[in-house]
Order: sequence, then C-alpha cells, then structure tokens
Amino acid sequence: MTKVAVIGAGSWGTALAMVLADNEHEVRLWARRPDQIEEINKHHTNSKYLPNIVLSERIIGHNQLAKALDGVEVILLVVPTKAIRETVKELKKVMKVPATIIHASKGIEPGTHKRISEMIEEEFSGSHMLRDVVVLSGPSHAEEVSLRQPTTVAVSSNNNEASELAQDLFINQHFRVYTNPDLVGVEIGGALKNSIALVCGLTNGLGMGDNTKAAIMTRGLAEIARIGVRLGANPLTFAGLSGLGDLIVTCTSVHSRNFRAGYMIGEGKSLDEVLQSMGMVVEGIRTTKAAHELAQKVEVDMPITSALNAVLFEGLHPKEATERLMGRVKKHEVEQLDVDFLR
Amino acid sequence: MTKVAVIGAGSWGTALAMVLADNEHEVRLWARRPDQIEEINKHHTNSKYLPNIVLSERIIGHNQLAKALDGVEVILLVVPTKAIRETVKELKKVMKVPATIIHASKGIEPGTHKRISEMIEEEFSGSHMLRDVVVLSGPSHAEEVSLRQPTTVAVSSNNNEASELAQDLFINQHFRVYTNPDLVGVEIGGALKNSIALVCGLTNGLGMGDNTKAAIMTRGLAEIARIGVRLGANPLTFAGLSGLGDLIVTCTSVHSRNFRAGYMIGEGKSLDEVLQSMGMVVEGIRTTKAAHELAQKVEVDMPITSALNAVLFEGLHPKEATERLMGRVKKHEVEQLDVDFLR
Repeated sequence: MTKVAVIGAGSWGTALAMVLADNEHEVRLWARRPDQIEEINKHHTNSKYLPNIVLSERIIGHNQLAKALDGVEVILLVVPTKAIRETVKELKKVMKVPATIIHASKGIEPGTHKRISEMIEEEFSGSHMLRDVVVLSGPSHAEEVSLRQPTTVAVSSNNNEASELAQDLFINQHFRVYTNPDLVGVEIGGALKNSIALVCGLTNGLGMGDNTKAAIMTRGLAEIARIGVRLGANPLTFAGLSGLGDLIVTCTSVHSRNFRAGYMIGEGKSLDEVLQSMGMVVEGIRTTKAAHELAQKVEVDMPITSALNAVLFEGLHPKEATERLMGRVKKHEVEQLDVDFLR
Repeated sequence: MTKVAVIGAGSWGTALAMVLADNEHEVRLWARRPDQIEEINKHHTNSKYLPNIVLSERIIGHNQLAKALDGVEVILLVVPTKAIRETVKELKKVMKVPATIIHASKGIEPGTHKRISEMIEEEFSGSHMLRDVVVLSGPSHAEEVSLRQPTTVAVSSNNNEASELAQDLFINQHFRVYTNPDLVGVEIGGALKNSIALVCGLTNGLGMGDNTKAAIMTRGLAEIARIGVRLGANPLTFAGLSGLGDLIVTCTSVHSRNFRAGYMIGEGKSLDEVLQSMGMVVEGIRTTKAAHELAQKVEVDMPITSALNAVLFEGLHPKEATERLMGRVKKHEVEQLDVDFLR
C-alpha cells in the first residue's frame, strides 16, 4: 500500500486514480475547483469527466495541495502540457519529502520544444525534492480504463528502478504495464500522434474515408519516428504501444478529442469555434505548433504535421492541405516512407 | 490505352476495373454467372457487390474466358485464394499470347503455405504464357475506391519493370500507386493482417473496447513482421502501406468482412453460422490455419494468430483466448515486441 497524490482530476487523472485504488493504494486526488472535490468526496463521482462511473471510496478528493501531498513519496501528475510548469512550481512550494513524479501528459512546449519530463526536471533544478521522473503512456482511453477494459501501457524513465516502481503501482489484471527504457521515444510518440489524429479527423470531416485515414496514419507514424530518431529515440519504440498503439487508438476511436477537433475543422469550423465547443483541452493543437517549429530546427521533414500547422495557424484550407498530401502525381514513385522510418 | 482482362467481378475486382476505366483503358470484366454479366452490360451496375455505384461503359462484362482474354497482355486476377489454382488452370487453357498477371488477392494456401504469386507461378510452370506476376495490395476498401476517395496502394514484383507497368496502369489523382521491391513482404502483410482483424472483431464482440484493439493491432503487426522476416521479407515493408496501412484499414473499418466475422464469433456465433451469414468469402479464416501451420513449421511465435486458430478450429472459447493474450500477469515485464519486430 503506497500513498499516491494524483494531481489533476480530469478524465485521465481520475481513471488512473481508479486503477491505483483497485490496487489498494491510498489515493489523494487533487483538483482546484472546490465543487468538484465536494462531488468526489460526497457522491464518489466526477461526472463532468467520467459520466456514469462510481469511484472507489479509497479515492479522497483534496483541493489543498499541501494536504494532498502530506507524507507522499509518489506524485502522479496529469495536467495539460500548458499547466505543467505552473503546477510543478506549486508542488515545489509545499513538498516536504522528495518524491518520484510519474506524469501521464502528452505534449511538447512551444518555443522551448521541451518534452514534459524535461520541463519537470528544469523546474526542479537546484532542488532535492525530485527523485525521478517517469512517463506513463500508451493506447488508453480514460473512459475504457474506468470500465476496467483490458488496456496496455508503457512506462519509461532514465532510472529503470523508477519505471519498475511505477509498473508495480499500476499493474493489474485489466491494466498491463510494460517498461521501456526509451524515455525520449515514449514521450515523443505520445505527444506527436495527436497531430496525426487531428489530420485524420480533418480528412473525415472533409468526407474522405478509411483508405485515406490509413494512408495518413502510416505516413504519420513514419514522420514521428523520423523526428524521434533525430532526437535520440530508439526507432523500435515507435512500433510499440506508446507509438503505433497510441496512434491507432487516437486516430480511430470515437473517444478521441483530437480526432473530433480535426473533424470539425474539416467540416469548415474555425479554430476558435472548435476550441469553444470542445470544452476540454485539445493537446494536439499546441503540440502541432511546437512540433512544426522543432522539425524546422532539426531539419526533419514532417509533411503531415507541417500541413496541419499551416491549416491551424496560417489559413491554409483543409481541402487544399489534404490534396497536397494525398494527390501528388509522380510517375514511378517508390514507397520511401519505410526507409525513412528507420533512417 | 491498354486492354486489360479483370478476372473476378466481386467488389474489389469491380472497383479496380473502375480505376482502369477512369484511366481510359479497355476493360473486360469476367465473371462466371451470366445474370451478373448481363446486369453489368445492360445496366452498368454490379449491385450485389457494389450497391448504388454506376460503372463506366468502358467496362464490358464477359462470361466466356476466351473472349475476355482475346488480344490481352495484362490480366488482373481478383478471385478468392481458394479459387486461384483452378482459375489459373482455366486461363492457361485459353491464353493465346503471354501476359503479365497482376493479382489483388490476399491469402496463403493451407497445406502448401504458398503465397498467391507462388501458386500462380507453380501453375504456369513449363508454360511460356506467364510473363511476370505482380501483387497490388494496400489499405483500400473497394467501396471507397469505387467512390474515388483518396487511396494509396503498393505494387510489387520480382521484376521491377512489371511493377512499373502496373503502376502506370492504375495511378491517377485518387488512386496513388507506389512500387515496393519486396514481393514477399507485400504478400505476407496483406494475407496475415486478416487474422489480426478477426481477433480485433472478436474482442469487440466480447464487449472490449478500443484500448484492447490497439494492443492487439500493435502486437499483431509485430508477429506478422516476425514471420515475414523469417520468410525473407524486408522488415520495413511492414511499417508501410501494405503492412501497417492495410492492418489499420482492415481492423478499424466498418467495411471489413474479417472484422465483422470476428465480431460475430466474439458474440458467440459458431463458425458455420458466421460463414453462412456473411455470404462473401472471409479470407482470414483459411489463412489463419495456413499461417498457424507455417509458424509452427518455421518455428516463429505468433501468439495472436495461434490463439485465433484454436478458437476457430479447436473449440477454444473466445473469452479464454483473449484473456490468455491480454491478461498474463508478470512482474517487471519489459516491452519486448519492438525488439521482436525486427529480429
């Protein structure tokens, strides 16, 4: 039995809190909004994020960070990429014992192009309160995890003992946890697939079908692997759960926010309209900007991500972007993406 | 303008005939049933296989093989794997000039474990009527191709000139054709993904969701690549259109017969009931048997295909098979499938 503070009570934080509670850990679930915490403690529900799900009584809601962290040596951080730095700053202020931080967020920071674990480490630099950072990532819709449907994920850290700590905390009959030593690959795969999901949604919104989607996904994984390898990842990670697996679930599932946001853009809605109607964070939008900048900086070709960036931020029409991607007419074109996949 | 005989007027043969007609070739579409040919020539429809689609008048139906083949140097063969040998025997009898055969079928023969191109070559051995064999494969539902939705496929042959001939015949704005020199990989990828699609359907039929499906697909691609490499394929082919791309479209699309057949098995229907209610060939069922035999022969581990074989032919309950695949509880399991992917 381990005390774990779960920071962030959105759908994914809450679903992971449920896995920890199933494994009989003592779970403190932190959120900022008092009415949400009251609902969690009084009714054992978190209905905005996981409708129709009853939470274990082992999950205790907190909206004071100091209380949630009291005596805690493992923190599960599940907030949007945009909120990582400010949340870590708050954590640092109230932490009294060093802790391992497991994060389950997916993104890259625009401007700095840092991964989540890098942002966390940077914020803790000069402090001895951070033991290790672990990422948990894989094909895992929160709604299905909360229903205990069979799910597999990977955990990764620069310290293998920290990965195994995370594996031990989460693993059970429904939730299979594998360790993978490639921290860069696991974080990059999870972050960048959201852009590909947006494009898949976009082509569907334009009326295109499954053949187009499969082509976008195949080439999308190749471009993710290409930049991942350039950044030091193991190319094989992209063929695994946090690469291919997560790409599949995000691009093909009705639960995917990024896919739905892309669909609305394909239908002709503006980015502002889409963001307003979603009501939840769509990580892929900011990450697309960051990935496009990063691809230019390290001189890696990412045609799908860059086309999406042009649609989102430079006014390119979705139809024109898709035609550019799918409709090039070249004679005797050899299938090159495979070679790229591992170059 | 090239004369092409399309042998087999199911949904895929008809959709490919439409691509050829769009490219202004002279298309003879052969089928055995006279009423089907009459419908094609009189009403320019093939409503059992492609409902609500109007065919070009360039497509002329034939039910006499000799007439369909008259003066033809390119044959597109699109019949079920089971019918390949008998159809090739009939072709040989009436062919008057040597021809290139492009096949677009997906399977492996039980017993011999031969790929389609090997079966065709074997049947032509000692004859000079076969120029080259080319395979056309990729993420391409017939229904969507017939609606001219953007689609990408790969063609492959032992003779690169034959691949380029096929590419030139089919390529257009909606239908992108890439050459890939890896004939073994392209045929194996197309054939074996059907077993994985059956298992994806089966888990859905059991009530499991997208997380499970993504895990099965990720590990499924790894086991396909594993046996493919053992048989001489280039591992990178499995990350391309005819590997990953075709796997995605077959496992996630409502159009997929293999997925639907798996779904019914997951719901508890018997194999006989499923075959009766489908009304069309479900290639994955016979291929699963062939792949399972082949995996044993060449000593490659294919846990998903073998579990499906046990469900289909040895009475294993679908739920037990899935639990066996998803539910192993091991401590500190490292994500190994990646390493397997290229071993």
